[in-house]
Amino acid sequence: METVGRSTDYPYRVEVCFMPGQYPLYAQDMGIVVVIDVLRATSAMVAAFEHGVDRIIPVSTIEEARQYIGRPGYIAAAERNGEVVDGFAFGNSPLAYVGQDLRGHTIVMTTTNGTKAINLAKGARTLVIGSFLNLSALSEWLVKQNDNILLLCSGWKDKFNLEDSVFAGAVMDRLLESGKFGVEEDSSIAAKYMYMAARDNFMSILKAAPRRRRIEQLHLLPDVKYCLTPDQSGVIPVLRDGELVRMA
Amino acid sequence: METVGRSTDYPYRVEVCFMPGQYPLYAQDMGIVVVIDVLRATSAMVAAFEHGVDRIIPVSTIEEARQYIGRPGYIAAAERNGEVVDGFAFGNSPLAYVGQDLRGHTIVMTTTNGTKAINLAKGARTLVIGSFLNLSALSEWLVKQNDNILLLCSGWKDKFNLEDSVFAGAVMDRLLESGKFGVEEDSSIAAKYMYMAARDNFMSILKAAPRRRRIEQLHLLPDVKYCLTPDQSGVIPVLRDGELVRMA
Repeated sequence: METVGRSTDYPYRVEVCFMPGQYPLYAQDMGIVVVIDVLRATSAMVAAFEHGVDRIIPVSTIEEARQYIGRPGYIAAAERNGEVVDGFAFGNSPLAYVGQDLRGHTIVMTTTNGTKAINLAKGARTLVIGSFLNLSALSEWLVKQNDNILLLCSGWKDKFNLEDSVFAGAVMDRLLESGKFGVEEDSSIAAKYMYMAARDNFMSILKAAPRRRRIEQLHLLPDVKYCLTPDQSGVIPVLRDGELVRMA
Repeated sequence: METVGRSTDYPYRVEVCFMPGQYPLYAQDMGIVVVIDVLRATSAMVAAFEHGVDRIIPVSTIEEARQYIGRPGYIAAAERNGEVVDGFAFGNSPLAYVGQDLRGHTIVMTTTNGTKAINLAKGARTLVIGSFLNLSALSEWLVKQNDNILLLCSGWKDKFNLEDSVFAGAVMDRLLESGKFGVEEDSSIAAKYMYMAARDNFMSILKAAPRRRRIEQLHLLPDVKYCLTPDQSGVIPVLRDGELVRMA
């Protein structure tokens, strides 16, 4: 293992939290929180902004989202266990937003992991949304900030997951290169090594994981390929007053 | 990333849980739990058995351990934040037991992370203790068992740590080679990649981690080198009626 920059030698820290349940242990002194749910909530959010939506309201419960079904100007989206919830036309698939003109629309979205992580971290000074789709745009913006950064993985039902961690490692790799950020936490070092093992082929994350089975059963492969393809968007969603909007 | 064996193709599972707080999410159907606290509780336990102690009673509080100070035949050991607790002659240093004849003695031990993990998992059908010191002996024994195996990392104050995860990856690597075990969890795959990044030089775990600073401040380097040196012991400590004993 090569040495990873130590925080005392650098003005700011960038750290990785592997699952929402650990957030309180990592949140201290973190001005910026990046919420990550690569498969698929945060990928869908970036895709939706890329295709014109004005704002996304993340909600915790299906009931909250259901109130917006059929309301003009609103798209109600709900996912649980990887599937669209009964009665909804949208779940957490980013491809559902591709090829549509969504200008002037608001999405109200609830998902198994991603919107839960957003609600958990909504007290952060700045909360932004990360996915492979906006990897470079997000990393370039983060490098310019003078603040500590927490990369918050949404995980899978409170457990560790590989794709969020690999993505966190990808962001971290870019931030460490800037010479401006160091790390303190073992989880951050581990994320970087996860990224190094996967960076030549992000689809290999799935080959390694038994979840490929689940993805195939749900016919999600095109969705997943889309979610693991970097730099399709320059949009950075940011939380303002409980709603995600495009960063100006 | 190469493919890691999937559980449906194999009779048994081996999984990794990164921190004690996640144990309830991973414990189901796991007949054998291996508690891991490489730096330093489980290393000290193996070292103590290797040097003759009869049994080790893991306790959760300093007060419980304190009752055994000065009692004939007992060694009271207490560690918090990496240091020996005031009033105790022993903490969690394995080197404290090296070169001593401890036959006929019982150790009563409380530590920051390791004994906490043991108490958490004490309801498991079989609970054994793992460390680099008994890596091969433990792995060879595990391969022969017909049961699901959970590798439970003690972490650092409920957070992820690198050395426990690398060790879990080392055990997993051997179990997967047997062709008898598969994995379901992303954490298990991640542990294997951690191990692959570190296996040529376990001391590199520390170079990568900012904790080297803490280790140097506490003058723990000889201790740490000892803890990261594999296969110094053939002992497998096992929990019986709340006490750790040498497996017959």
